[in-house]
Amino acid sequence: MTRLKMGMVGGGMGSFIGDVHRKAASIDGMIELVCGAFSSNKEKSIASAKELGISGNRAYGSFEEMIEKESLLPEDKRMDFVAIVTPNHMHFPPAKLALEKGFHVICDKPVTLTLEEALELEKVVQSSGKVFALTHNYTGYPMVKQAKAMIAKGDLGDLRKINIQYLQGWLATAVEKTGQKQASWRVDPEKSGIGGALGDIATHAENLAEYITGTKIKELAADLTAFGDGRVLDDDGNVLLRFENGAKGILTFSQIATGEENNLGIRVYGTKGSLAWYQENPNELTLYWLDKPKQIYTPGGNGTYPESSDYVRIPAGHPEGYLEGFATIYRSFAKELNSLKNGKPLSKQPDFPTIFDGVRGMQFIYAAVESNKNNAKWTKL
Amino acid sequence: MTRLKMGMVGGGMGSFIGDVHRKAASIDGMIELVCGAFSSNKEKSIASAKELGISGNRAYGSFEEMIEKESLLPEDKRMDFVAIVTPNHMHFPPAKLALEKGFHVICDKPVTLTLEEALELEKVVQSSGKVFALTHNYTGYPMVKQAKAMIAKGDLGDLRKINIQYLQGWLATAVEKTGQKQASWRVDPEKSGIGGALGDIATHAENLAEYITGTKIKELAADLTAFGDGRVLDDDGNVLLRFENGAKGILTFSQIATGEENNLGIRVYGTKGSLAWYQENPNELTLYWLDKPKQIYTPGGNGTYPESSDYVRIPAGHPEGYLEGFATIYRSFAKELNSLKNGKPLSKQPDFPTIFDGVRGMQFIYAAVESNKNNAKWTKL
Amino acid sequence: MTRLKMGMVGGGMGSFIGDVHRKAASIDGMIELVCGAFSSNKEKSIASAKELGISGNRAYGSFEEMIEKESLLPEDKRMDFVAIVTPNHMHFPPAKLALEKGFHVICDKPVTLTLEEALELEKVVQSSGKVFALTHNYTGYPMVKQAKAMIAKGDLGDLRKINIQYLQGWLATAVEKTGQKQASWRVDPEKSGIGGALGDIATHAENLAEYITGTKIKELAADLTAFGDGRVLDDDGNVLLRFENGAKGILTFSQIATGEENNLGIRVYGTKGSLAWYQENPNELTLYWLDKPKQIYTPGGNGTYPESSDYVRIPAGHPEGYLEGFATIYRSFAKELNSLKNGKPLSKQPDFPTIFDGVRGMQFIYAAVESNKNNAKWTKL
Amino acid sequence: MTRLKMGMVGGGMGSFIGDVHRKAASIDGMIELVCGAFSSNKEKSIASAKELGISGNRAYGSFEEMIEKESLLPEDKRMDFVAIVTPNHMHFPPAKLALEKGFHVICDKPVTLTLEEALELEKVVQSSGKVFALTHNYTGYPMVKQAKAMIAKGDLGDLRKINIQYLQGWLATAVEKTGQKQASWRVDPEKSGIGGALGDIATHAENLAEYITGTKIKELAADLTAFGDGRVLDDDGNVLLRFENGAKGILTFSQIATGEENNLGIRVYGTKGSLAWYQENPNELTLYWLDKPKQIYTPGGNGTYPESSDYVRIPAGHPEGYLEGFATIYRSFAKELNSLKNGKPLSKQPDFPTIFDGVRGMQFIYAAVESNKNNAKWTKL
Repeated sequence: MTRLKMGMVGGGMGSFIGDVHRKAASIDGMIELVCGAFSSNKEKSIASAKELGISGNRAYGSFEEMIEKESLLPEDKRMDFVAIVTPNHMHFPPAKLALEKGFHVICDKPVTLTLEEALELEKVVQSSGKVFALTHNYTGYPMVKQAKAMIAKGDLGDLRKINIQYLQGWLATAVEKTGQKQASWRVDPEKSGIGGALGDIATHAENLAEYITGTKIKELAADLTAFGDGRVLDDDGNVLLRFENGAKGILTFSQIATGEENNLGIRVYGTKGSLAWYQENPNELTLYWLDKPKQIYTPGGNGTYPESSDYVRIPAGHPEGYLEGFATIYRSFAKELNSLKNGKPLSKQPDFPTIFDGVRGMQFIYAAVESNKNNAKWTKL
Repeated sequence: MTRLKMGMVGGGMGSFIGDVHRKAASIDGMIELVCGAFSSNKEKSIASAKELGISGNRAYGSFEEMIEKESLLPEDKRMDFVAIVTPNHMHFPPAKLALEKGFHVICDKPVTLTLEEALELEKVVQSSGKVFALTHNYTGYPMVKQAKAMIAKGDLGDLRKINIQYLQGWLATAVEKTGQKQASWRVDPEKSGIGGALGDIATHAENLAEYITGTKIKELAADLTAFGDGRVLDDDGNVLLRFENGAKGILTFSQIATGEENNLGIRVYGTKGSLAWYQENPNELTLYWLDKPKQIYTPGGNGTYPESSDYVRIPAGHPEGYLEGFATIYRSFAKELNSLKNGKPLSKQPDFPTIFDGVRGMQFIYAAVESNKNNAKWTKL
Repeated sequence: MTRLKMGMVGGGMGSFIGDVHRKAASIDGMIELVCGAFSSNKEKSIASAKELGISGNRAYGSFEEMIEKESLLPEDKRMDFVAIVTPNHMHFPPAKLALEKGFHVICDKPVTLTLEEALELEKVVQSSGKVFALTHNYTGYPMVKQAKAMIAKGDLGDLRKINIQYLQGWLATAVEKTGQKQASWRVDPEKSGIGGALGDIATHAENLAEYITGTKIKELAADLTAFGDGRVLDDDGNVLLRFENGAKGILTFSQIATGEENNLGIRVYGTKGSLAWYQENPNELTLYWLDKPKQIYTPGGNGTYPESSDYVRIPAGHPEGYLEGFATIYRSFAKELNSLKNGKPLSKQPDFPTIFDGVRGMQFIYAAVESNKNNAKWTKL
Repeated sequence: MTRLKMGMVGGGMGSFIGDVHRKAASIDGMIELVCGAFSSNKEKSIASAKELGISGNRAYGSFEEMIEKESLLPEDKRMDFVAIVTPNHMHFPPAKLALEKGFHVICDKPVTLTLEEALELEKVVQSSGKVFALTHNYTGYPMVKQAKAMIAKGDLGDLRKINIQYLQGWLATAVEKTGQKQASWRVDPEKSGIGGALGDIATHAENLAEYITGTKIKELAADLTAFGDGRVLDDDGNVLLRFENGAKGILTFSQIATGEENNLGIRVYGTKGSLAWYQENPNELTLYWLDKPKQIYTPGGNGTYPESSDYVRIPAGHPEGYLEGFATIYRSFAKELNSLKNGKPLSKQPDFPTIFDGVRGMQFIYAAVESNKNNAKWTKL
């Protein structure tokens, strides 16, 4: 095995999500960071590179410079792929350029600033023949994979009710006015797009629900609110859902839910059983049955399917967390790249979120905003 | 103290809710059962009386007979009040007659079959000068009272988000076709009214939310479903809520949520803090704060207010359950009756649910059904 | 059914445990309180009687008076049995006299002040032909009965490890010096006997462990401590256990475990599975298996045995608490008395704790105190 | 920052703990694996190296070869430290040699096969001037650090009771007879030493308790058992504990506790408050107070001290797990090495477990085995 070489766009020192991507990429020893456009300020970019233990001459002042200069390096030195960890408005330009110049891309979500960009990027991905992965990281948890596998096998019967929540409280006060960078770009439509909490967290919930259940949201009725003084983007929402398979449900999300940390959770009810999973306690999956006692599954524990246990890094009882789930996306992405290097074709159904998930997320945002403008009228995705 | 004498309408042997009412009434030693129209079949009524340890000549074949004959008994022998524990369609007639004949009434919910009956009963109660209590029993839990008191004192700040759920799974299969009596009347509009799960459980959730938060639902958008084959009444629903104080939220309820037992729960988010309470674990109230660690309050435990701890029967750590919460409604009702006996006037804000809660519940049912007919259009209560 | 008539020794107004006994006795409608020696002060006894809704001429100033005067009443008026709810030192005298005068007895634990008294009482019970029940109330919980049934059927295989805990914190400070009556008699050897927390709570733990597992403690090694300033009786202890079947385990108990309310719990490990039950969350029984996912059983829920579900009063999901568990002891005692009234013989294995449990508890206390005197030397029961 | 270069002894492909060490070392991007004696079979060692993405000429067939050959490499190429991930009997020889040849060492626990070796290694470490870290990884969890900090500041008052448990079930059946390598060396005294579960897991519990509480076990009384058929080493034990500060407690541990996965937990009771932490749910620390409601602390959440929050990698609500806790030991070790490189002296109180913890663990094992031989007689450490 040769380690894959990663170049990063964004993620200078102090960045939250850049650091997450780096740790997630390195856990499994398959990827090493070799270069980055860590900041649009070249000096800062170089300083970040040094702190990260990589050479200053692989630090760039822009993604354009990075892509151009890396392209000129010999194959065994240049980066294999680009990781994009910037705010939403800076996803599309580097993703497009990297793909066009022959680099694979792994990108944070939501995929782009606008639906139009997402649709265009979809075409670029398809024509490039390169791999594009989107870090909807919550699908990397072993218990999420167990949930998906059980539903796919029909263990729960026909699905009838799907309730999802994603509750945070960190925007309960006006932190964006205190200079907190994470907050300030998220409440700014120029950088976030037309959705606030909708794009930042509700898309994770939407993606998780469709991933686990294997069915799609057909239409929705959304009631969005900007509770924070002076905010123009939603910081809270409640949505009625109707799914293609006939199931119904709700999605409630918020970034003003005081005291909540990162409470993503899902309840799925079928005719034979139901399940519950919550991200803050990710190593438990609870199964409820029509005619048997409730069960609690754990990663690699009794009764788990290979579709789940194959993703566990350590024995049952040794909790894995957010970084490991995130790392699973990177690992699957790395396996796909290694497979290509070995001459295999692109996977038709890769084991990580793709541009299609990205487009779907943007459609969800747009439908919710439109529904909300029409006083929660039913709106198709 | 003289024990109050209770006459019961319905609740013959084998009845679930009749037995609950009897146990709840007897826990605190303030009430004794003296008579009943336990069944419309007089022989069965007498048999039930004997099993219950009361004299056969106080068993009646109809509520009319009971009310008439008890009226003729001397005051120290005749019943003080009537407890109505029949299906919904049999609430209004005995309640009206009892009140008109001078008996206090405690009645199961929803208060009547139709909104019209509820509004008429409201007038009867007011003109009678008698006490009418409705057993929205979940408001009797000490931790529910703690939640109400904390919000009333402003501990949570201004409320912004109110999410409620009431999830059961016992109608996930067609149990009404197996001869199960609890199920068969609940799916029958003649006996249940226009709401199915809506009247049976969603009204509890609506009542609990308004009780705890002190604000009212202003309008709602409801998506109701009858998943069960051949059912005409809803067995599942998802509702968007807007409250009078500006808060928003969702209510999700179901009787086809496979594996759920009696999962009533509420999450209330304010600007300073938030709380969570779940009926299946009723002795915990979780408080989340903007700037302090999460806290768990327990009945009579550290930090509880008298508004809550006054309702606890046993020291902290000795769990109280459903019957005790139910009993608290009976105890408050009994205290009100004793107060009247001692010449005091009717309470203006009695410590139990009243006819106003009953009317409100019917308005909720009617608004939800109308909204659903209009494809989840916003509908005022 | 005729309601059984109860006379009470102790339990005047303000008493904690007297009130618990009365509520527990009344829940199921099979028993009514008719008289009492509620206080050694006759006026106080009469005042208590009135508050409890019973006639002042059935209030007595001593248990001797009560037993004598009640004996003179016609059978259909006089009490059927005596409930003893006094501190430990006042258990033996009324129990002995009542039994000798032909009354059944139900008594709080530990059964007597000394082992000698317990052994003598055992003889009195046997020669009297009367029923004697001891309120080791925690054996009344449905999930405790489920645990016992599963082990008896061999579901867990051969038992190897049995860990028990009973942790309270209410004596973490010197509350006995504040005039708190519950505390002051418990730290007084004259009223409590040679065990402090040992008699008050560790006997419950010992009884629960032997009840659930069906095996007996063979020997123990106890390290007892009186942490409270000036206390002569233990308020904390740690005990190594060896059981007759070869299992081993520990018992840890305390009344100075700051912040603990009433945390009685048990973990039992067998060759095929294991279980966990905690009194503060009594409606959950967790089963762990060698080769299946963990399961959670609930009262009356899926998979419960009749040995458990027969004891549930309300459907699954409607939590029962401490009073219901306590009431189950009273109900089983009442059924035994009714059975005798109907001419049936005394049960050989009655469905409630008996004098044998009482003697066993005293042997446990004595063995632990002796072991502790010998620096935790192994001591046989 | 330059990445530190790690050489590994043991940990060939298929090894559980070797893989854990590698992942833990790589998460924070401060360390890279450069060489290894992954197997005593050189071909296997080379195969492992290739799978791990390192050059075959840095794969060695013995630790002696590795240490010798690496010593000859230029400083900027050769390994900085040795990570020892072999069974217990193979800790001492490579640790001693590496230290003597000038390499820092990080070693799995228990530190050596015998107490004698541990005491000798202590001298070697001290004379070498090199850094020696022991991977008692559970001390790396942020909530463990919060617990330690709260106790050190006196938040809980004087400690009185300390209960510890470490419960696993993976040896409930005779897996060592199925060829499972993890099991076979652990039940073999030649490779494990005189303790079975005692060395494998009870030392973790002992270390955790002393780390969190800041007091030491003074003496113990141990009852050890080998339940597994034919086993000579303990697979279960119960221990009474007396601490230097006057606190008392119990330690219960097992590898035959059917259904348990990795249930390490601790309860500490002081005069003002108490706390609970369980490894399987590592992101919660529960605090109980004399006069305030129970609190739940989370990593980086409200109320956490810098002594804890400085160790959190991601915002509150994003769970960290076992690998992150393990990685914290590696990170602190790496920081110490970087500090030395920058000319600073060795830390007097380094932020990771050291040879002193290792010696202490061996003393604990020896005291427990001796106590057990004397039928659980009190034995000093």
